[in-house]
Amino acid sequence: MSGWVAVVGLGPGSEALVTPEVTQILAEATDVVGYIPYVARIAERPGLALHASDNRVEIDRSRHALQMAAEDKRVVVVSSGDPGVFAMAAAVLEAVDHGPPDWRNLDIRILPGITAMLAAAARAGAPLGHDFCAINLSDNLKPWSLIEQRLRLAVQADFAMAFYNPRSKTRPEGFARALDILREACTDDRPVIFGHAISTADEELRVVPLSQAQPHMADMRTMVIVGSSQTKIITRDGPPLVYTPRSVPV
Amino acid sequence: MSGWVAVVGLGPGSEALVTPEVTQILAEATDVVGYIPYVARIAERPGLALHASDNRVEIDRSRHALQMAAEDKRVVVVSSGDPGVFAMAAAVLEAVDHGPPDWRNLDIRILPGITAMLAAAARAGAPLGHDFCAINLSDNLKPWSLIEQRLRLAVQADFAMAFYNPRSKTRPEGFARALDILREACTDDRPVIFGHAISTADEELRVVPLSQAQPHMADMRTMVIVGSSQTKIITRDGPPLVYTPRSVPV
Repeated sequence: MSGWVAVVGLGPGSEALVTPEVTQILAEATDVVGYIPYVARIAERPGLALHASDNRVEIDRSRHALQMAAEDKRVVVVSSGDPGVFAMAAAVLEAVDHGPPDWRNLDIRILPGITAMLAAAARAGAPLGHDFCAINLSDNLKPWSLIEQRLRLAVQADFAMAFYNPRSKTRPEGFARALDILREACTDDRPVIFGHAISTADEELRVVPLSQAQPHMADMRTMVIVGSSQTKIITRDGPPLVYTPRSVPV
Repeated sequence: MSGWVAVVGLGPGSEALVTPEVTQILAEATDVVGYIPYVARIAERPGLALHASDNRVEIDRSRHALQMAAEDKRVVVVSSGDPGVFAMAAAVLEAVDHGPPDWRNLDIRILPGITAMLAAAARAGAPLGHDFCAINLSDNLKPWSLIEQRLRLAVQADFAMAFYNPRSKTRPEGFARALDILREACTDDRPVIFGHAISTADEELRVVPLSQAQPHMADMRTMVIVGSSQTKIITRDGPPLVYTPRSVPV
């Protein structure tokens, strides 16, 4: 078999954040599969078929990619950010796990990318400079009670926290509840970073204390990062620098 | 002032994982500052001064970089992986916070990179495909009791877990204690991934059940990833694929 599937991360938006490894494998592909706005980032060329599909059809898309690889195509599945962080790599492997046995021995590669959390953290300073966690706030695929429990335990562990998919039009209330849980457990001055569409033309960065954080400050293109109890703010001309020190006093 | 400091991530080792943004800024630098093995990755050229220093002098190195920027140099501070994840970005901002007031208004940029956790996860499949945490197991900069507490809470939250700096010659016992804590709280078959020097010529990947995980399987160049209770293994010819499904049943 000469076909393969590569599940790749395109980073948060800027072409300057796409790794050379990903650029190279895209040049070798016969087929690119992915969610419409991510496939729209791929330049058309002769010999390359682009297969764009809507959101929430991740398993169908994965099966399509695997089937084409089994037919000797060279298939790239594109995600934004990193494919292994709330993106297509797990979906492709779920499809392998529940698919025909011969899919298991396909050539399947995952190529990492700059995930939104790292891009937003970098713009704000170094809020993830000490231990941290990443939580997907969407309850499409897990019960909301589990999200609440994880939030409470994450605060108890004093992790800095990165929230993916904080808010959508169909689930406007989840992020408000998450903020309420944080307000019960954290002091008012805990820094909250809203990184919207970082590295794109629509980029906006906002840093506010928890007391001023509002649900409408986030949408599905926003990465929310909440500092730990140790996180500090350096005020300066222009936006502040937020960092979590490397050390915790004994 | 025309000087600046850029704190950049070189990724886990392969040049194919260095972002174009980082390559570009290195081309503009007058000075590169960093730990010896990372500075060794930078090509020499006329007009570029390389300043390599030993480990554990992160604050001195940061001050040196900031001082040069204040003297109108264009300074790149290099980290491996991502500079914001257990690397130089927090150290530089600590130096700013405690340094002369005029350092606050220097042009300071943080440029993200592929952190070791994402590279190791990609090689193994998608073990971080659901909520996860990242913990630095070194107790150089925090009390061991805090690491133990975070491990217990992370297991309770059912995060997948990425461990940076699991083991060094001077602290051989910490990782053994971490494994003991995991064995108290998790079933024997919990997948443990040891990703050694991923993307370099020395790369080694090993996946074992928790019952077979041994302290000597990790060193300071190893990323350890422990699955959540939901993490699955796909057996196949060659190394297995490890993934954490996107969904948790209600």
